[in-house]
Amino acid sequence: MALQYAKRMDNIKASEIRELLKLTQRPEVISFAGGLPAPELFPIEELKRIAKEVLEENGAKALQYGPTEGYQPLREEIAKRMEKVHVSTSPENILVTSGSQQGLDFAARIFINPGDIIICESPSYLGAINAFKAYEPKFIEVDTDDKGMVMEDLEEVLKNNDNVKFIYVIPDFQNPSGKTWSIERRKKLVELANKYNVAILEDNPYGELRFEGEISPAVKHYDTEGRVIFLGTFSKIFCPGLRLGWVAAEPEVLSKFIMVKQGADLQSSTISQMEVASFLQQYNIEEHIEKIKDVYRKRRDLMMKTIEEEFPEGVKYTYPEGGLFTWVVLPEHINSRELAVKALEKNVAFVPGGSFFPNGGNENTFRLNYSNMDEKRIVEGIKRLGAVIKEAMEAELA
Amino acid sequence: MALQYAKRMDNIKASEIRELLKLTQRPEVISFAGGLPAPELFPIEELKRIAKEVLEENGAKALQYGPTEGYQPLREEIAKRMEKVHVSTSPENILVTSGSQQGLDFAARIFINPGDIIICESPSYLGAINAFKAYEPKFIEVDTDDKGMVMEDLEEVLKNNDNVKFIYVIPDFQNPSGKTWSIERRKKLVELANKYNVAILEDNPYGELRFEGEISPAVKHYDTEGRVIFLGTFSKIFCPGLRLGWVAAEPEVLSKFIMVKQGADLQSSTISQMEVASFLQQYNIEEHIEKIKDVYRKRRDLMMKTIEEEFPEGVKYTYPEGGLFTWVVLPEHINSRELAVKALEKNVAFVPGGSFFPNGGNENTFRLNYSNMDEKRIVEGIKRLGAVIKEAMEAELA
Repeated sequence: MALQYAKRMDNIKASEIRELLKLTQRPEVISFAGGLPAPELFPIEELKRIAKEVLEENGAKALQYGPTEGYQPLREEIAKRMEKVHVSTSPENILVTSGSQQGLDFAARIFINPGDIIICESPSYLGAINAFKAYEPKFIEVDTDDKGMVMEDLEEVLKNNDNVKFIYVIPDFQNPSGKTWSIERRKKLVELANKYNVAILEDNPYGELRFEGEISPAVKHYDTEGRVIFLGTFSKIFCPGLRLGWVAAEPEVLSKFIMVKQGADLQSSTISQMEVASFLQQYNIEEHIEKIKDVYRKRRDLMMKTIEEEFPEGVKYTYPEGGLFTWVVLPEHINSRELAVKALEKNVAFVPGGSFFPNGGNENTFRLNYSNMDEKRIVEGIKRLGAVIKEAMEAELA
Repeated sequence: MALQYAKRMDNIKASEIRELLKLTQRPEVISFAGGLPAPELFPIEELKRIAKEVLEENGAKALQYGPTEGYQPLREEIAKRMEKVHVSTSPENILVTSGSQQGLDFAARIFINPGDIIICESPSYLGAINAFKAYEPKFIEVDTDDKGMVMEDLEEVLKNNDNVKFIYVIPDFQNPSGKTWSIERRKKLVELANKYNVAILEDNPYGELRFEGEISPAVKHYDTEGRVIFLGTFSKIFCPGLRLGWVAAEPEVLSKFIMVKQGADLQSSTISQMEVASFLQQYNIEEHIEKIKDVYRKRRDLMMKTIEEEFPEGVKYTYPEGGLFTWVVLPEHINSRELAVKALEKNVAFVPGGSFFPNGGNENTFRLNYSNMDEKRIVEGIKRLGAVIKEAMEAELA
């Protein structure tokens, strides 16, 4: 038997992170690989109460089909919460999705013909790159500095390419780089998108997890023509196991997302939507987010301090002001995939950086997550990793 | 602003059923439109107990990310349950999806280049047609008689077209026709698929809801070369609100589905998967299915009896041996979309049949669902519908 698959399948590979995560299941592994939230912070007791209440008061509805757009009270709660990132919107502009990953898939489905261009930050989120690839785009990566994407480079690309469909950005505590865009860059991005008539896909899973200072207004806050599509998720501020996220967009664009959702999976889980809506109505999620931030801030501090002490000179890294990740750049000739194998021998895991560049290269980079390991393991893991890096750099010199 | 969408979006329309369902939310409407299970049969008490137990014993895991393939104990339970339709398989051949709708979307994504052919029964499931359309296929419809798809016609199509990718079938209590395939046709289908090297997509949401006689072996039971992809779901035997279904396929094909799932939404809800696995381990789902069958059998009997009494001569309809639907064919010049408007004026809803034919036509048909209305409403609704049909037929004659 030799079945004939679609051409797009040539582009699709198993996610390196997901494959790696399987190897890191062993309890002795100190994993900085996944983007997993700290499970000890999940609101288990609250959900137990709410699950019971939803089934008792509204069981038949909770287990039945519901509207594709989402459970109306949840759409209302989401619309209200968008104020946190300075976006005024209404429930009609919200589609509930199965994680923000689904929003990424839908965006490419809606906009991308084979050969169309997606502009993204260099590096960009691996899961988005993989989702987009199913639609056979060309990727153009634009460099970032410590204020976000470099706008001169972006305009150069927009000027010279007429089939750019959207610019994909993660402006807050970017995955994988940990970088955050300045306000000026956000405004300029919208200005350029308006000028060259392209959409902006703003992926914002971590925006509220800012450890110092004020939450930045989303790029969507500066949207003047309804061309910013905002993706949000409950995975990092609540829990990922329920698989709930959302798209916030203007009615014309949102209607496309809704039609695509009908074909893709009809709707997201009715009962999970009712549970999250009840949680938002009955509890103070801001307090819950504060707890998450307190824990992650400590872990970030400890990881950065230990990196400073343990990583050899010549290794660069970012200092994230929030979110889940820091990004490491090794001297040019050190290959982080080879390093990952050696680190795993010492029971330490991370994600090599190459896969975060859709057009390849940059094999001397890697991503570290600090949200999922306790403080003792962070110190121990970074120490071991420092030793592995030193060894590789010394071997390189020898 | 005039954003440029992908070409595929020209094919995608809002589902007629989902739009219609919004109109039928008013409590006074007797709806035979949706394919909604009877909510009074949902195992609410059992789920309340299980939800508590899962969160108490395994809360951190239940709310965390899990593997794309699905929660292993659920895959095991699903593999075991496949014996019910005479398929011997193993957990490694199962991917948990967000409803079987997601399996439909993935199948087209994996196989269809623009212009490739999907063969389907005429009529076929509207939700599948809409999902497939995103991948720009050509549809070739093959007629069915009371034993299933007409095999001579199918072979003619296979002989004359070299870019057929798969044959999409619902062999048991088909949606929308209510028809069931004979054993001989199932065997012959596999034989032809082998001969012409195409895949078979077997959609089986209702197979276990057989009111009389023995459950038919799935087409996959007769699969000799691993080319049958089986889609199952918990929506009709348990509840649809959790959005859980599955794909059963051979490893090479299943690996494509898993990669596509990673990009599409990473995984289905961890906690919902754990709940369903616990239900299957702790309760007797066969007993639960018997209860569903008892209720639906009575409703089917009553609907068919009332149709016989109330529909005028010249109207044809199928007699389903299970599942949720019967299919009505009116005299050729009666338009069922116009009829639907008149019926809704009398607070009765059904789905006009035209949308179930991907290449159009057949506007004199419609689908009736009997699972979601109680017996009193079934009798009253069919009476009103009979009167509306009579009126339309008399107007036609006048």
